[in-house]
Amino acid sequence: MAADGTAQLIAVDWGTSRLRAELLDGDGVRLAEADSSDGIGTLEPGEHEAAFERLVEDWPVVPAVMAGMIGSRQGWREAPYIGCPATPDELAAATIRFETTAGRPVAIVPGVMVRSEDRDGDVIRGEETQMVGLLSRPGGFDGLAILPGTHAKWAALGNGAIQSFQTFFTGELFDLLAHQSFLRHSVDAEHENLAILPDFALGVRRTVERRVPFLSAVFSVRARHLLDDTAPVDNRAYLSGLVIGGEIVAARDSGLIPGGGRIAIVGSRTLTKAYHRAMAIAGHETEAIDGRRMVIDGLLQIARSLGFLGGKDKP
Amino acid sequence: MAADGTAQLIAVDWGTSRLRAELLDGDGVRLAEADSSDGIGTLEPGEHEAAFERLVEDWPVVPAVMAGMIGSRQGWREAPYIGCPATPDELAAATIRFETTAGRPVAIVPGVMVRSEDRDGDVIRGEETQMVGLLSRPGGFDGLAILPGTHAKWAALGNGAIQSFQTFFTGELFDLLAHQSFLRHSVDAEHENLAILPDFALGVRRTVERRVPFLSAVFSVRARHLLDDTAPVDNRAYLSGLVIGGEIVAARDSGLIPGGGRIAIVGSRTLTKAYHRAMAIAGHETEAIDGRRMVIDGLLQIARSLGFLGGKDKP
Repeated sequence: MAADGTAQLIAVDWGTSRLRAELLDGDGVRLAEADSSDGIGTLEPGEHEAAFERLVEDWPVVPAVMAGMIGSRQGWREAPYIGCPATPDELAAATIRFETTAGRPVAIVPGVMVRSEDRDGDVIRGEETQMVGLLSRPGGFDGLAILPGTHAKWAALGNGAIQSFQTFFTGELFDLLAHQSFLRHSVDAEHENLAILPDFALGVRRTVERRVPFLSAVFSVRARHLLDDTAPVDNRAYLSGLVIGGEIVAARDSGLIPGGGRIAIVGSRTLTKAYHRAMAIAGHETEAIDGRRMVIDGLLQIARSLGFLGGKDKP
Repeated sequence: MAADGTAQLIAVDWGTSRLRAELLDGDGVRLAEADSSDGIGTLEPGEHEAAFERLVEDWPVVPAVMAGMIGSRQGWREAPYIGCPATPDELAAATIRFETTAGRPVAIVPGVMVRSEDRDGDVIRGEETQMVGLLSRPGGFDGLAILPGTHAKWAALGNGAIQSFQTFFTGELFDLLAHQSFLRHSVDAEHENLAILPDFALGVRRTVERRVPFLSAVFSVRARHLLDDTAPVDNRAYLSGLVIGGEIVAARDSGLIPGGGRIAIVGSRTLTKAYHRAMAIAGHETEAIDGRRMVIDGLLQIARSLGFLGGKDKP
């Protein structure tokens, strides 16, 4: 296996608003990185190859593995969802592979879906690669993975596969409530780390301990402001606590939190800390794992499975 | 008591976006009506009297009773919230009374608040007058009143008073999800009566019977669309069912639905029908009551309590 600082792979995280690429050697050591605002939300059909080449034109012609919305119906080429349980090798086998005009091999990672009689279907696109990263850690990973974000994912990982998952609308809902709803006047304050404020914990407790239903609790942000003249930054922290606490209660009621076993929170430092704190209030210990690192590790694992790194034959 | 077609009262429903007035005789028979887009959201401080006079300048100089956001901090004069339980006479006694430059007596109805240790405070402004209308019906009203809308109110009425209430963010949340969220592409269709579509009932059942948590169920609208290519109008009906069903489950979990007794749904024809259907799926019988009528009836009752109609002394 080559791991000598020779470029072997371009790992690409291509979402709706950003395109990010890293040039890696066979061990996953970063040799270069680049990013642009050519998210798929800004591109018309037929513009993806040019956007990609613009970003990496100075880099050697090595294979690229891509995850994220780039594989959606609105992306470069659609990589259809595969079912659960899904292993890293199955995800690799289901990648959409082709060559660019410049002769660069490309593999686009598919999303993962759940279909069941009990509830509606569910879909993931992008986070599956972070889960592959988690599964590929030394010793693997068995337990619950929480991936906070616009659409938070709670996934059961085990036996080397994504077993099932459930999506919560939490991140987008917080943004809608904070910026577009009539609550916006009550929470109009910026703060880089709301979860350290006391009212964040208060909001979590309202939903987790007192079990005030989320749909009702949200309005109390306005009531607090009107009746007690609470400060906007505190109201914002409170709203954040209500939303994350509401998500935890809903996940618990859905049986997603195992009695024992590991719980990993995968994401940015700010989000993992907020969820760690909220989960602690709910009585659950968690470990924080860097989300960006997991994307790269997942793309590397899929590249390995595809034989792009020379360390393993194609499946 | 005069009830001879002689104008005795102007009943005013003055909200954020609309100003509506009716000229009534002593029995509440409508002699004239007028409305304008001079909602309080469009007016600067000091502009309220002129906006009101513009609307009613041709009407006789009789007292006006006003309910809605006109009594808020951003309104004409603030009518501070009074606590629960609140009777019609207490609301009348707490009105803010003054005379316009034109010599017209005005009374602005206060809002009602709940403060408790168990949960955050809650506030109502405008709906209290509809509840007074309900309480003033022949035989009164004992039971649960549901007032759907932007911020739906569930109120316990009894012993001639508003005993308590809880607000749900349902209506505004549906609008945010349907128009501002990433779901908007999946529900982009207009329909005047979503509740008659089969997918409305399906959405209600998901939340009420299967108890899929609202925060997670919402995402399934997108998953349905992606995986099953369901039609936008059906997705919109489904989302509406999820939101109203989620509200019903939350209200039930909060102990708001009495084991027996009356349940009234007060609102527009479309909304009362949707809630009636959803409540029926949840196993509860309800009666529909016209919301506009209840505003007028409530304002009349308060006018009577204030002696504006000559039928009763001032309290």
